[in-house]
Amino acid sequence: MARRSRAARGRVENTQVAAPFVKRVLPYFDLLDEERLAALEAQVDWIFEDVGVAFRDDREAVRIWRDAGAKIDGDIVRADAAWIRSLCALAPREFTQLARDPKKSVVIGGKNQVFAPVYGSPFVRDLEGGRRYGDIASFEKLVKLTYMHPFLHHGGFVTCEPCDVPVSKRHLDMLFAHMTLSDKPHLGAITEMSRARDSVDMAEIVFGQEVMAQNCVIMGNVNTNSPLLVDKVASEAVRAYCGRGQGIVVVPFILSGAMGPVSTAASVCQAMAEAMMVCAFSQIVWPGAPFVLGNFLSSMSLKSGAPTFGMPEPVVSNYVIGQLARRAGLPLRCGGSLTASKIEDAQAAYESADSMHSTMLAGANFVMHAAGWLEGGLCTGFEKLIMDADRLGSYQKVLSGGLDTSEEAFARDAYGEVGPGGHFLGSAHTMRNYQTAFYEPKLSDSENVESWEEGGSKDMRQRAFGRWQTMLADYQPPKMDEATREELEAFVARRKEELPDAWY
Amino acid sequence: MARRSRAARGRVENTQVAAPFVKRVLPYFDLLDEERLAALEAQVDWIFEDVGVAFRDDREAVRIWRDAGAKIDGDIVRADAAWIRSLCALAPREFTQLARDPKKSVVIGGKNQVFAPVYGSPFVRDLEGGRRYGDIASFEKLVKLTYMHPFLHHGGFVTCEPCDVPVSKRHLDMLFAHMTLSDKPHLGAITEMSRARDSVDMAEIVFGQEVMAQNCVIMGNVNTNSPLLVDKVASEAVRAYCGRGQGIVVVPFILSGAMGPVSTAASVCQAMAEAMMVCAFSQIVWPGAPFVLGNFLSSMSLKSGAPTFGMPEPVVSNYVIGQLARRAGLPLRCGGSLTASKIEDAQAAYESADSMHSTMLAGANFVMHAAGWLEGGLCTGFEKLIMDADRLGSYQKVLSGGLDTSEEAFARDAYGEVGPGGHFLGSAHTMRNYQTAFYEPKLSDSENVESWEEGGSKDMRQRAFGRWQTMLADYQPPKMDEATREELEAFVARRKEELPDAWY
Repeated sequence: MARRSRAARGRVENTQVAAPFVKRVLPYFDLLDEERLAALEAQVDWIFEDVGVAFRDDREAVRIWRDAGAKIDGDIVRADAAWIRSLCALAPREFTQLARDPKKSVVIGGKNQVFAPVYGSPFVRDLEGGRRYGDIASFEKLVKLTYMHPFLHHGGFVTCEPCDVPVSKRHLDMLFAHMTLSDKPHLGAITEMSRARDSVDMAEIVFGQEVMAQNCVIMGNVNTNSPLLVDKVASEAVRAYCGRGQGIVVVPFILSGAMGPVSTAASVCQAMAEAMMVCAFSQIVWPGAPFVLGNFLSSMSLKSGAPTFGMPEPVVSNYVIGQLARRAGLPLRCGGSLTASKIEDAQAAYESADSMHSTMLAGANFVMHAAGWLEGGLCTGFEKLIMDADRLGSYQKVLSGGLDTSEEAFARDAYGEVGPGGHFLGSAHTMRNYQTAFYEPKLSDSENVESWEEGGSKDMRQRAFGRWQTMLADYQPPKMDEATREELEAFVARRKEELPDAWY
Repeated sequence: MARRSRAARGRVENTQVAAPFVKRVLPYFDLLDEERLAALEAQVDWIFEDVGVAFRDDREAVRIWRDAGAKIDGDIVRADAAWIRSLCALAPREFTQLARDPKKSVVIGGKNQVFAPVYGSPFVRDLEGGRRYGDIASFEKLVKLTYMHPFLHHGGFVTCEPCDVPVSKRHLDMLFAHMTLSDKPHLGAITEMSRARDSVDMAEIVFGQEVMAQNCVIMGNVNTNSPLLVDKVASEAVRAYCGRGQGIVVVPFILSGAMGPVSTAASVCQAMAEAMMVCAFSQIVWPGAPFVLGNFLSSMSLKSGAPTFGMPEPVVSNYVIGQLARRAGLPLRCGGSLTASKIEDAQAAYESADSMHSTMLAGANFVMHAAGWLEGGLCTGFEKLIMDADRLGSYQKVLSGGLDTSEEAFARDAYGEVGPGGHFLGSAHTMRNYQTAFYEPKLSDSENVESWEEGGSKDMRQRAFGRWQTMLADYQPPKMDEATREELEAFVARRKEELPDAWY
């Protein structure tokens, strides 16, 4: 029985879309016309030139800006918009992030789309263990599941916070897990300059100095401190990653009405201005450094002031920022499977789907939080990860398949076989094509109600629970050169010796 | 406490989008280019001219076609494509369906979008009563809820089958319920010629002969018998409705691989060809009759052969048929909040959202099954109705709001008040705009986990249960002229006398 079910799973897998990332054939959904896009860009330029963005570290960022020719007023940097845009134009429109398994390397930018899991949650939740603080054991399970899932192309980084490891050392354990339990591309730490450096150093052990000099093998992901502030964490991360030719993802998180004006248009412009200022900074540090422009815009509940997700305002913002990023020639991170729901209920799914559908059509190149996000990002759900990822396969087929209009797809021969009121089930055309015709989701139940009840009336959450447990039971680590592993272990051991235990 | 909560609900309501239907400002998502659209249209024309569509009633439809000049071969009708397209061009690009309350009349076609509930389910389900056969009591509750909900613009018709009333008579009870418990527009019966006539006769009692001669006040909704067959039910419904100047919605239901070829392109073309042949027929019967071109395309599970919903293939078909319908100049019915799930779980919501997001962007003018659908259409969910409808408000805001790019939306004055790292919560711009800035969903919980747990850890389904019960408790029937009501009662009583009790 178990054997048969394993074989059946294998057959279905073959009919699915599987690729290291999405190569998009679908056109984009262009929500705004040229004139209105130009109006938004004028607002962005106004922020560059008149409002300015503050850079607050130990005056190093301001020094770099001054040397490059910006106008400095205290810690506020203002600059000619054309100059900022010309600096941004130095960043590549698309670039490859190498994976340890070269077949899993991803191209970020252009018509490509890369899906990565949730990032940064202090809590985890699963159907058996309930809600609890994240720990290194959960973290490793999440890395394994991401490694195994065909529709998660990238490992992300903090799939949950391993709260049982000191803050000062946990980046080492997280990096080691990504580098040994998976061979997909991933990000590195950003919370402090030395942690960012450790990340790049460990990547250098895995890829070697020569490869690293020529390629992006690791990236950091930082937030600006909206509104209009780039703090020490962000500017140091740019210097640590881009300073060694590696990539940086910069994401203003704007809850409209709090960290930006309450209107979507103004918040989108502010996000563009903040991210492009950091992009320009990154290109001063290392001309040509891989840069991803991020946008994380949330609406607000009038009842509680809490952020809301999957709502019309962020949906619209995804479409609009997609247009603006393409015009700026910069790879885009936006959207994800976002929700404010505490559990994997219908709210979580409605919000995640509307958020992700717009993320998909908007052409977001690097989609963090594409799976596993709950509770406004406070919690990683094991079932949610698997449920979202199942839906990512559907998006991948829409994006990379579009509509087949080949002669075979028109099936004219079938109409010679099947007359009015007949059926196409056994027609030659159906037999030739049925195995690849449809996306076959793993977690959607399409049985009739009687079969479903006989199977225990399981909802999607219960099916997802079973699936991730089976996946983990089947987990086989990717191959790794023993010398590299030992070198990584030695690095982690040495740094753990050097670093103090700090818990905050 | 109850009083305060009532007042709070009232305040939030004011900030929501509420309109009798959606006036779209958003551009369409055009998935195919001109060349590929032309290739699809060539296939549609090939079906008109070479393959043909069978019309099987008592030879009356074939007689009408022959008199008009079509080529008849047995019951198969073939015709010159240009002629079929010129007949379709007689149907209005948009038309108004009058509601009993004129403020609730809807415009179908053009840039307008109208949302109606689920249609045709034999079963109902709610959290308290579980799954059971539909009955007239449930039907009346569903009519009341549809009447009360701001984002359901149209009553539909068979929101569930009232299985406790004889098949031969239940159309009378359903019509009476729509006409007295609600004042929104609705559809009529189609299952038999006499039932269609009863529907039009009862509409004439409500609206009067004069109004009806000049206006569409009721429509029928029929399926073709795919592939390529129009049966007696369909052709008689066209004659009963269009023959008196009323509207008809014609919908090929194609499970790709069964009622159409297994490829999406071929199924979409077949749907267009079938519906346009019936449109041409309707325009021969009554030139200028309101016609809505339908498409209901489903993918298939390879495991069970069962239809699947919210999957990439029907999502793509929604976008493509939207383009084809606009080029044909015909109002479109497609999509809905569709799912194969048996209950209101995450599967139901993911599938419904992806189906509805594409329905929205595709520009579907008349969206049946926009709320309440479960189990591939076999079951109407009370909670599902309310949950889906809550999401329709979000789609309505995206469609009718787009992105505000007025000077006020750019909020330049706010940047004079708020500096780097500050917040916009108290800025004058926020105070002027926060009440209308965001869609405020009723059923999404954005509280923190502690508050949510204190409130009983309710999932969306439980919140929806509470909401529809409160709505029904608050129900007030719309005003109705007593003489009209008596005339309707007398009509129903007389027809119930005349008709035999038939249970199938």
